[in-house]
Amino acid sequence: MYNLLKGKRGIIFGALDENSIAWKTAERVHEEGGVFVLSNSPASIRMGSIMQLAQKTDSKVIAADATSVADLENLVDQAMEIIGGKIDFVLHSIGMSVNVRKGNHYTNQNYEYTEKAWNVSAVSFHKVMQVLYKKDAMNEWGSIVALSYMAAQRVFPDYNDMADNKAYLESIARSFGYFFGRDKKVRVNTISQSPTATKAGQGVKGFDGFIAFADKMAPLGNASALDCANYTVSMFSDLTKMVTLQNLLHDGGFSNMGVSQQVMEMFE
Amino acid sequence: MYNLLKGKRGIIFGALDENSIAWKTAERVHEEGGVFVLSNSPASIRMGSIMQLAQKTDSKVIAADATSVADLENLVDQAMEIIGGKIDFVLHSIGMSVNVRKGNHYTNQNYEYTEKAWNVSAVSFHKVMQVLYKKDAMNEWGSIVALSYMAAQRVFPDYNDMADNKAYLESIARSFGYFFGRDKKVRVNTISQSPTATKAGQGVKGFDGFIAFADKMAPLGNASALDCANYTVSMFSDLTKMVTLQNLLHDGGFSNMGVSQQVMEMFE
Amino acid sequence: MYNLLKGKRGIIFGALDENSIAWKTAERVHEEGGVFVLSNSPASIRMGSIMQLAQKTDSKVIAADATSVADLENLVDQAMEIIGGKIDFVLHSIGMSVNVRKGNHYTNQNYEYTEKAWNVSAVSFHKVMQVLYKKDAMNEWGSIVALSYMAAQRVFPDYNDMADNKAYLESIARSFGYFFGRDKKVRVNTISQSPTATKAGQGVKGFDGFIAFADKMAPLGNASALDCANYTVSMFSDLTKMVTLQNLLHDGGFSNMGVSQQVMEMFE
Amino acid sequence: MYNLLKGKRGIIFGALDENSIAWKTAERVHEEGGVFVLSNSPASIRMGSIMQLAQKTDSKVIAADATSVADLENLVDQAMEIIGGKIDFVLHSIGMSVNVRKGNHYTNQNYEYTEKAWNVSAVSFHKVMQVLYKKDAMNEWGSIVALSYMAAQRVFPDYNDMADNKAYLESIARSFGYFFGRDKKVRVNTISQSPTATKAGQGVKGFDGFIAFADKMAPLGNASALDCANYTVSMFSDLTKMVTLQNLLHDGGFSNMGVSQQVMEMFE
Repeated sequence: MYNLLKGKRGIIFGALDENSIAWKTAERVHEEGGVFVLSNSPASIRMGSIMQLAQKTDSKVIAADATSVADLENLVDQAMEIIGGKIDFVLHSIGMSVNVRKGNHYTNQNYEYTEKAWNVSAVSFHKVMQVLYKKDAMNEWGSIVALSYMAAQRVFPDYNDMADNKAYLESIARSFGYFFGRDKKVRVNTISQSPTATKAGQGVKGFDGFIAFADKMAPLGNASALDCANYTVSMFSDLTKMVTLQNLLHDGGFSNMGVSQQVMEMFE
Repeated sequence: MYNLLKGKRGIIFGALDENSIAWKTAERVHEEGGVFVLSNSPASIRMGSIMQLAQKTDSKVIAADATSVADLENLVDQAMEIIGGKIDFVLHSIGMSVNVRKGNHYTNQNYEYTEKAWNVSAVSFHKVMQVLYKKDAMNEWGSIVALSYMAAQRVFPDYNDMADNKAYLESIARSFGYFFGRDKKVRVNTISQSPTATKAGQGVKGFDGFIAFADKMAPLGNASALDCANYTVSMFSDLTKMVTLQNLLHDGGFSNMGVSQQVMEMFE
Repeated sequence: MYNLLKGKRGIIFGALDENSIAWKTAERVHEEGGVFVLSNSPASIRMGSIMQLAQKTDSKVIAADATSVADLENLVDQAMEIIGGKIDFVLHSIGMSVNVRKGNHYTNQNYEYTEKAWNVSAVSFHKVMQVLYKKDAMNEWGSIVALSYMAAQRVFPDYNDMADNKAYLESIARSFGYFFGRDKKVRVNTISQSPTATKAGQGVKGFDGFIAFADKMAPLGNASALDCANYTVSMFSDLTKMVTLQNLLHDGGFSNMGVSQQVMEMFE
Repeated sequence: MYNLLKGKRGIIFGALDENSIAWKTAERVHEEGGVFVLSNSPASIRMGSIMQLAQKTDSKVIAADATSVADLENLVDQAMEIIGGKIDFVLHSIGMSVNVRKGNHYTNQNYEYTEKAWNVSAVSFHKVMQVLYKKDAMNEWGSIVALSYMAAQRVFPDYNDMADNKAYLESIARSFGYFFGRDKKVRVNTISQSPTATKAGQGVKGFDGFIAFADKMAPLGNASALDCANYTVSMFSDLTKMVTLQNLLHDGGFSNMGVSQQVMEMFE
């Protein structure tokens, strides 16, 4: 609509189906003139409908297990060839907890599952950046964004070990963002998004009650996947070049509410 | 009980009646061996029962309008004479909003009232410290504490302009705390306390509903005035010498909760 | 360049001369298709060169003392007439400390000056919003931005009472932002900008040393006034509709640095 | 000195030699009347001088690999038998990065090392608490403290992957703290300590320059290991019962400094 990303090239991780934030972002980036490669794990590619998105946005899909450095190296090499140059933007929208899936309470974790979720949800972000950094694959003033959630700062009981993974993810954004900024003028941020009714979100116990609570607490209500896509576009554009190492709250104001009138009314 | 404050001298502002946090603090400081002067405004002295507290704790009361530099200078001079030396600890527990009292909504402030509340609730803290600093009235490793509330960081709709005053108060703690630390080895902190059923708290509209909400949200429930007095004793003691410029959350964990199970249950 | 603000109308406060962030913002908003009225105090209008900016951006200047509710009411009425409708965006870039100007140290404040600076630098933001809110002068999904500085969170010794004023300003953004969001779908945020060599910035003692320090600390270096204008454009656009109550760090990463390699080298 | 911990029982992890924070804490807890078991890994027990500490404090040492749930279960069982009852306090002072030891830069991590450091430095804290929780081994109003560092929030380039581990550790404190508070009235906090010249600290590259920088930045200078021990005593005592889920900055004010006069002077 504005040609905000004309001439920019990127990689978008994590589009599963049309409810995915990554899916909406891919659509919006395409509308804004950006070109990109889509990536997801082989299993997610089979399970979801990413091929439809690829068709709609004239893009290729490259399978990669984001915990495999070899897969990521292959992805980055291929992506640069396909899109014809170095990379300007990356969206990391990857997260999964085996403890959540298996119904293990936070106080009763299986630590092999804990390790797997940490590796997939958090370390993958480091691996993506380490591969990009070593290959010198990012253009100056490029922008890397990972999706996070406010459980990294505050307790949401059902979010389980994903809270700790998001805290680690946000720390990676700062730690790696320093070197990527200093050495390559690349900015790295996380967007902390409202609870969103994606496939991943719906896996969390009590999600419906929680989404209603957040909506009543936030003065503007919950931000949708499309809202998040729009915001991510702004973070990929040249309008936000000097924003880095930040965790950007995108939540209709939820994060700075102590209590709203609407929530209070239930306690009076 | 532990003689934690034996040999320490101070000033305690803001004890109105036995529900006051300052009242409980005075009692606990007395038990721990500290000696002090009590101060409040002439109106609060008439309205409340501070003389009982003075008797109970073997202390003197000196009236002072905390917005008057002259009153504060007189207070500090007299206090040092009465307690026999420089000052080791100060508690600032002063706050009042005319807009709240008159029922003016936050979006419909009378700015003369706004100014008065800011002056009483926030600037008074600067004045107290400026007088102490200029008179070189604090001992090295002394401790200054002001009571604050989390509305300084997050929205509690009925807290009105007190939210902004507490933000200003907390900023004074940092700004003045730097100079007081560097020049006199004195630490300055604010304690951000759970909503407490004091005279001041009860003036806030919808206070009962709110106190119930906070209690259901905090894993340990709301901290009481006595809990706060105990915590303040620890901040006056030599165990916490290197804590400064901080806003210390004393709230049963409320501040780091996104949502609790108990609150969620009302939305499911 | 992108037509991001086509059809949007606003008010921009605080453009003094071509170094002003408000000046750069006005230029960029104009390029993006937004129309607006410029406002500043009568003294600043005389002292600076705002008429050149008005000419360059096809806009009118309306003098207003931002501490005067009557002036602000007149401004909003006239602005809506001139730009032909309700308001979509507001930039508040107003700040001034008499204690700084007069060389009063933070520990030696003249409290009449303190009150004046608080009124001009912080309360003016409340007044602007209260007038807009009462007149129902904002369009839905409008965006209000005030410029702030990180001294609101951390100590910069020479920033003096402006630190406390910025803390109060940021609190107003949250407090009023809740009601503006809930009732009118308007978002309110502050942008916490790198130290910038504007007229106001240069008034701060030791500013040159400080700007060099910040530049060496931030992985991307200091953000310029033009960078800030670009970021503000993104905050006025429809891409950021769900961002509210936030203090947005725009500083090349400074705020999340503990220490940089470059700064460390001076201590080794 | 005050009998603050009379009648309290605990476990102290991580005392290596007399420079360790855990060592100083054990000494101070002993002086305050607390009894405890010391624990460390078999390798650290061999390498350090923990037996001297045990003798000095009349305590037993139980070897445990803190990444082994079986070892921790054995430790907790034995500890309760030795000290004669449920546990009132726990200090977790455990951290180690293989990438740091091997000299791998943050942008060039060996992910097996990353996993090992995460497991030792962060997950061990979850394991300790999960074992205590499942065995119902904590007394009501018990206190669990883990040592952290401000690299969890801000970038210190040489701190490497320990930054991310500390972010994960602090998240565990919140996540587990909720359940421990709600179900057992136990509080869980992290103390974020000044850089300290312990064995672990000294392993970090450029540590001397950094410790000098921090000391010049903090208004009270760096907090020592003994200061930290004192603060930890206050967190174990009954004076701080309602403080939970917090990350407590214990750093002479460093964390809330933007810049100090002393640091600025090097840039002017």
